[in-house]
Amino acid sequence: MSVAFPLPPGSTIGILGGGQLGRMLALAAARLGLDVVILTPDEGSPASRVAKRTIVAAYDDPDALKALADASHVVTYEFENVPARTVRALTGLGAQVAPGPEALRVAQDRVEEKTFLNAAGAPTVAFAAIDHAFDIDEALPRIGLPAVLKTRREGYDGKGQVWIRAASEAAEAFAAVGEVPSVLEAKASFVRELSVIAARGRDGEIACYPLSQNEHEGGVLRTTYAPAHVPPALQAEAERIAGEILTRLDYVGIMGIELFDLGDGALLVNEIAPRVHNTGHWTQDGCEVDQFEQHIRAVAGWPLGDTTPMVSVEMTNLLGDEVLDWLAIARQPDARLHLYGKGDPRPGRKMGHVNRVRAKIPGG
Amino acid sequence: MSVAFPLPPGSTIGILGGGQLGRMLALAAARLGLDVVILTPDEGSPASRVAKRTIVAAYDDPDALKALADASHVVTYEFENVPARTVRALTGLGAQVAPGPEALRVAQDRVEEKTFLNAAGAPTVAFAAIDHAFDIDEALPRIGLPAVLKTRREGYDGKGQVWIRAASEAAEAFAAVGEVPSVLEAKASFVRELSVIAARGRDGEIACYPLSQNEHEGGVLRTTYAPAHVPPALQAEAERIAGEILTRLDYVGIMGIELFDLGDGALLVNEIAPRVHNTGHWTQDGCEVDQFEQHIRAVAGWPLGDTTPMVSVEMTNLLGDEVLDWLAIARQPDARLHLYGKGDPRPGRKMGHVNRVRAKIPGG
Repeated sequence: MSVAFPLPPGSTIGILGGGQLGRMLALAAARLGLDVVILTPDEGSPASRVAKRTIVAAYDDPDALKALADASHVVTYEFENVPARTVRALTGLGAQVAPGPEALRVAQDRVEEKTFLNAAGAPTVAFAAIDHAFDIDEALPRIGLPAVLKTRREGYDGKGQVWIRAASEAAEAFAAVGEVPSVLEAKASFVRELSVIAARGRDGEIACYPLSQNEHEGGVLRTTYAPAHVPPALQAEAERIAGEILTRLDYVGIMGIELFDLGDGALLVNEIAPRVHNTGHWTQDGCEVDQFEQHIRAVAGWPLGDTTPMVSVEMTNLLGDEVLDWLAIARQPDARLHLYGKGDPRPGRKMGHVNRVRAKIPGG
Repeated sequence: MSVAFPLPPGSTIGILGGGQLGRMLALAAARLGLDVVILTPDEGSPASRVAKRTIVAAYDDPDALKALADASHVVTYEFENVPARTVRALTGLGAQVAPGPEALRVAQDRVEEKTFLNAAGAPTVAFAAIDHAFDIDEALPRIGLPAVLKTRREGYDGKGQVWIRAASEAAEAFAAVGEVPSVLEAKASFVRELSVIAARGRDGEIACYPLSQNEHEGGVLRTTYAPAHVPPALQAEAERIAGEILTRLDYVGIMGIELFDLGDGALLVNEIAPRVHNTGHWTQDGCEVDQFEQHIRAVAGWPLGDTTPMVSVEMTNLLGDEVLDWLAIARQPDARLHLYGKGDPRPGRKMGHVNRVRAKIPGG
């Protein structure tokens, strides 16, 4: 489909993925008068309930990709593990895909990611590529102990990771991650975890939301506090890092950048996600233009929206059967409930989140 | 379908009508994890693009009503001219319909409406039922001049109305409204038009948003300013009126109540709309829980949300080709754009609206 940006209202956004991020992107697109088509392998997905159309097929189904390309003025995605061949196929069909393939390539492989980040002037922990157990032995003197071994690809929410506390654990650790290509990372001595949600428009304009402070449990995000109490210089450093990353990738859309605050004014990048991000959900009730609308604006070639916070927010994920507390939460005056339309509240599953506005922010 | 309130997430809300109000109700329902089924006679309606399912049929199609009743845990509507037989059919099929038939009966007929309002202690202008031109002659001495003749049923946005400035114009005016049953109303000497958006839950709880000040052009809403600058006693009087109306109707949902501010502390009710209301669109960006979520909460039997305003808002309708300014509006930092997904911007058609936050409110 031949397109000119900015896409006018009435245009169609294609979204790869039917989960809660796709759902919230679809709701944001609707506010702007844009239609949404979802491609997902799952029947009855959260996003498909609020989309104009859903194509239920595998992400590499040629007919489905043709249908998506034909229907969409631009295609975006809600997860970073979109197969490279899917993006190539869509591009080959003449579809516009944003963010572009380079961001996916970098985000899908932890060694590529850290190599790119360091080259971009975005510091990370020390790391080493691991292809064999003996690579761990070789790297440990430089990386130090404890160190964490992670699969290069496909890990998220703490999966595919194992800590190494003694050199003797190398072989066992490599077995634990499945003896696949991995990365060994030094432990960061951080005082807290922060993140910055950054957007870049088609004209190169960049807009960052204020830093948020994040708490994880068992590798899964539990709570985000925003805006985090940080000195202006730390916000500026986060924006410098975000600017380098997004500009070098010629990025279009929202990126979630997870950071370690070392407590001395320095930040390390933990990882980047080329999509809307769980640590940006606070913007739905904290800012005039939230990360979902901002992403739609960016990929549609619209001007970026204002990222000034209106109010402080504490965002808490509702995991598994915590969602059964919906009625009690709905009674709380400062709680804004966001539910994802998922059926089965299996343990740990992200079922929704609560934004508590005018929250007390730690350190404030 | 047998239902128990409050409806849990995953339940389905049926909506009669596929316009922008149905669309914004559907978006609000989605945030709460509820699915939506739309019944509309129009293909490709604004609401159907964000609903799980759409039934395209006439509002009195028995098969369509059966399908809607079977699919929905509760049925609501976005327009007050829902045929009474539609509600009877749905109720006969075991469907829950909210707001109930009494609210529709009263809101669909201007004589019934004013009679009800006065009995409820909600003052209106003087009025008379008109069935013949000579009824006008008889009523004019009591109503005074100028007076406005309106059809009893089906008028909106200034349609089906004609002003009478001399007794000699009676026959001409009656002809102009089509010689249908009408109402003759005295001219209110008001200083400004206000409205209150009020909600009543299934447990009888009532919550009112702050009064808004409204400006019409050619009978169509142009701008809403909210919260209006009013003395606390005037807000209290509006809430007293709303409480009487909603309680006497055993109402469930949002009602828009248009008021004349007489400038001496008294309010007259101009008209009531048993649905979400154009003068309540400011709540989307002014309050934590907007009128759309509040309506869904009420009809689903959830507790009502907080109606405290967070920020002042100037809401402007985008009529006809004013929507073509979308790009310029998207660039304005304090403007929140809401577009309805309608294709053809015919003159006067409501295509979207803009909420400008932190607006200067007249009289402030």
